[in-house]
Amino acid sequence: MVTLINTFTVKGDFDAFERIWAQSAEFMRTQKGFIGFKLHRSLSRPDVYVNVALWQSRADHQRVLASREFGEHIKELAAVSVPDPDLYTVVLEGVPVQ
Amino acid sequence: MVTLINTFTVKGDFDAFERIWAQSAEFMRTQKGFIGFKLHRSLSRPDVYVNVALWQSRADHQRVLASREFGEHIKELAAVSVPDPDLYTVVLEGVPVQ
Repeated sequence: MVTLINTFTVKGDFDAFERIWAQSAEFMRTQKGFIGFKLHRSLSRPDVYVNVALWQSRADHQRVLASREFGEHIKELAAVSVPDPDLYTVVLEGVPVQ
Repeated sequence: MVTLINTFTVKGDFDAFERIWAQSAEFMRTQKGFIGFKLHRSLSRPDVYVNVALWQSRADHQRVLASREFGEHIKELAAVSVPDPDLYTVVLEGVPVQ
């Protein structure tokens, strides 16, 4: 399992960014190996969004990156934001002490 | 609910960073309002770690930041890494299409 953490700095219209992003998310939700995502927005810097998405494997994620649909979405997103993506693995996790 | 996303760039020893971080996490797990955390490590930049932690409220998180224990942990962490924390709210989330 891999985690994509992608920080977007929005240059243009926030609503346009969220609309384009929602369309891209609908596509991702149909893709093999996609597990889930959360798009976060900074409380102090409203132009900063962070997507945290879980994928079954690096190969699953890379296959989607190579798709025509993703290519179109990322072009639209690049018109209103600057992405900064990277893939991660979880090294430690925890829940409240019972 | 708020999400802390904190990017650490580790300057010193990675094992020391993970050990100190694990101690801090044990403290966080006992705190009111703590819901869960995942510490991620970049697959391409091994010196970059990202903590994504869920808190019931901003007040719960800020109370912990003001605690003596947290003050000690962050001093130790600052000796081996550079933190870049920010608080976020989730604006969109999704799971695979059924």
